[in-house]
Amino acid sequence: MDLELDQCATETLQMLDSPGLLLVSCGKSGKPNVMTIGWGFIGYLWGETVFVAAVRSSRFTHDILEENGEFTINVPAEGMEDIVQYCGAVSGRQHDKIGERKLSLADGRKVKVPVIAECKMHYECRVIHKLEINPELVPDEWKHLYQNKDYHTLYFGQVLASY
Amino acid sequence: MDLELDQCATETLQMLDSPGLLLVSCGKSGKPNVMTIGWGFIGYLWGETVFVAAVRSSRFTHDILEENGEFTINVPAEGMEDIVQYCGAVSGRQHDKIGERKLSLADGRKVKVPVIAECKMHYECRVIHKLEINPELVPDEWKHLYQNKDYHTLYFGQVLASY
Repeated sequence: MDLELDQCATETLQMLDSPGLLLVSCGKSGKPNVMTIGWGFIGYLWGETVFVAAVRSSRFTHDILEENGEFTINVPAEGMEDIVQYCGAVSGRQHDKIGERKLSLADGRKVKVPVIAECKMHYECRVIHKLEINPELVPDEWKHLYQNKDYHTLYFGQVLASY
Repeated sequence: MDLELDQCATETLQMLDSPGLLLVSCGKSGKPNVMTIGWGFIGYLWGETVFVAAVRSSRFTHDILEENGEFTINVPAEGMEDIVQYCGAVSGRQHDKIGERKLSLADGRKVKVPVIAECKMHYECRVIHKLEINPELVPDEWKHLYQNKDYHTLYFGQVLASY
């Protein structure tokens, strides 16, 4: 178990819920992309500490994670709410969000994907499993979330470092 | 967001990792059963606070959850380690673990499944989604966990109450 993860779990979950966390991924192009995630999980699977990120299949990040199964989760610092909002509103297909918002990148310690230096906490993850939301098992109450059949993939990221 | 869940998330995750949490379920027979879980997640999906419980398909609890998709998660109090160990070691098919270990049940507030009174924290959940581990996507490193093809089902339980 990663003790550092545990000590910060409550705050990370609070920030996940609102305003969101910044997920950085980096595919074959070598250019990192950032998106905001609001849904996901922290826990344990197969004896490993795991961060689960829910990413819709239409997202640019989804394409990237299919190319390179590594990502970093960055917990925004105070005052970054506007950036978090922006990174959830526009797509990396059209925007260089990291450049536009002048975010500083630092090398990952355990993964090739960078972290966002301005953030106050970082989780470096490698995807060890993935599952897609099962359309047949989405209760009526939440079906409106998938009107475009844009189901989430759950990426199970083994936490290799957290700091 | 359920604030109570958030405030306790760190401790719940610590206990999930070790010694484990007690999951109570209750099927058509009306007789509650308890098992110990060590793998699972806390987080958010579809705007809801969710506890994900990983349950192998061979477990008695798996049969019960397929009958009635409600469960309670009970965080053991100090000194209950021996009970947690026992509830993970024997099956409810052969043992009345609740009776044998003289556990006291209290009615759930939001679900028909009871909670364990001796425990210090309770989450009442109803299953809103489930996904099975994909055998084809289990990395070699963890394949030994599934030598009997006894894959986990992930039960996504919307947290209806936590206290």
